[in-house]
Amino acid sequence: MNFSSRLLENAVTEFSKLPGIGQKTALRLVLHLLNQPTQDVERFSDALTRLKKEIRFCEVCKNISDNSICEICSSRKRDKSLVCLVEDTRDVMAIENTNQYNGVYHVLGGLISPMDGVGPSDLNIDSIVERVKAGEIQEVILALSATMEGDTTIFYLYKKLKDFPVKFSTIARGIAFGGEIEYVDEITLGRSIVTRVPYETSLR
Amino acid sequence: MNFSSRLLENAVTEFSKLPGIGQKTALRLVLHLLNQPTQDVERFSDALTRLKKEIRFCEVCKNISDNSICEICSSRKRDKSLVCLVEDTRDVMAIENTNQYNGVYHVLGGLISPMDGVGPSDLNIDSIVERVKAGEIQEVILALSATMEGDTTIFYLYKKLKDFPVKFSTIARGIAFGGEIEYVDEITLGRSIVTRVPYETSLR
Ligand SMILES: [Zn+2]
Ligand SMILES: [Zn+2]
Repeated sequence: MNFSSRLLENAVTEFSKLPGIGQKTALRLVLHLLNQPTQDVERFSDALTRLKKEIRFCEVCKNISDNSICEICSSRKRDKSLVCLVEDTRDVMAIENTNQYNGVYHVLGGLISPMDGVGPSDLNIDSIVERVKAGEIQEVILALSATMEGDTTIFYLYKKLKDFPVKFSTIARGIAFGGEIEYVDEITLGRSIVTRVPYETSLR
Repeated sequence: MNFSSRLLENAVTEFSKLPGIGQKTALRLVLHLLNQPTQDVERFSDALTRLKKEIRFCEVCKNISDNSICEICSSRKRDKSLVCLVEDTRDVMAIENTNQYNGVYHVLGGLISPMDGVGPSDLNIDSIVERVKAGEIQEVILALSATMEGDTTIFYLYKKLKDFPVKFSTIARGIAFGGEIEYVDEITLGRSIVTRVPYETSLR
């Protein structure tokens, strides 16, 4: 692309670094922002820099949180003996949205993916081992996406945790193979949590 | 969506104000940025605020430019008697990309659209009338999208300019009806400029 302005080119280049945003889409978005009032553009970029600088993660479950302990972990109404292990905050949001789950979460922050250079030490795995070791947890739901990375991660976690006196379950696979949890509709996702099966059963 | 953090919610809300970006896509983009180093996120938001604050428009053709007169208008190699009227900078980029055009441009900054509340006074129309009045221009190519707004704008401009001693042409319609110029492939677009027809002919 031949840009008539370096400033324009820079903005488009930055936008097109985002996943799924090509140069033409980036240009369309940048020109849209350019047509907005200055204060709107500032609000946009402030929201991003503030998020990045001030973001915190719950000390217990590692979910994105504005407080040191998130609302879910600090709620007296949630069942602390039941932990749902998820990839990221989108999955927490998706499961919360079903209104079918009353336990707590543990957010891994990703999945094991040798291809992308993501190993167990890059994820919040030690902290879930510590939580299980502490003894309050009775059941761990392995609610990871039905992809190769999800299965690899589940297998790794299962090996790490299987000697503790906890029950393992995976969410029922009403979810298509290769499907990513965050895109599943609420009803399917809600049901698949209610009808979860012991992990050992799902291996057969 | 139930966000676990107000900071996260703000960032997603800002992103989802962009055209074609739904809440789920916005969340995916925000979480991607959150995983990048702080300096990358700052570079992203700086590029946007700088663009908005420092952006300039060519005094002659109204295209986005880093200088008061853009490179095209200040080039001695371009034919100043030939002006191509376009909607926005994307169209200039698309036409430049064909390497088929040696004239100059005039960027309207939009199309007349009563539905969206865009009238002639919102566009760079007075300035093209002035340019034509100045006498150097011999031909005006009306290269607007083949949409209702494009046709309305062409008709308005034609009425404004038809009494001046200039020739009007529209780009040849190899472009499908309803098609937007910026998405046309280079070959079709290049040819349709070369085989442009007098505007009066296209009315028959
Ligand atoms: Zn928490
Ligand atoms: Zn210019």
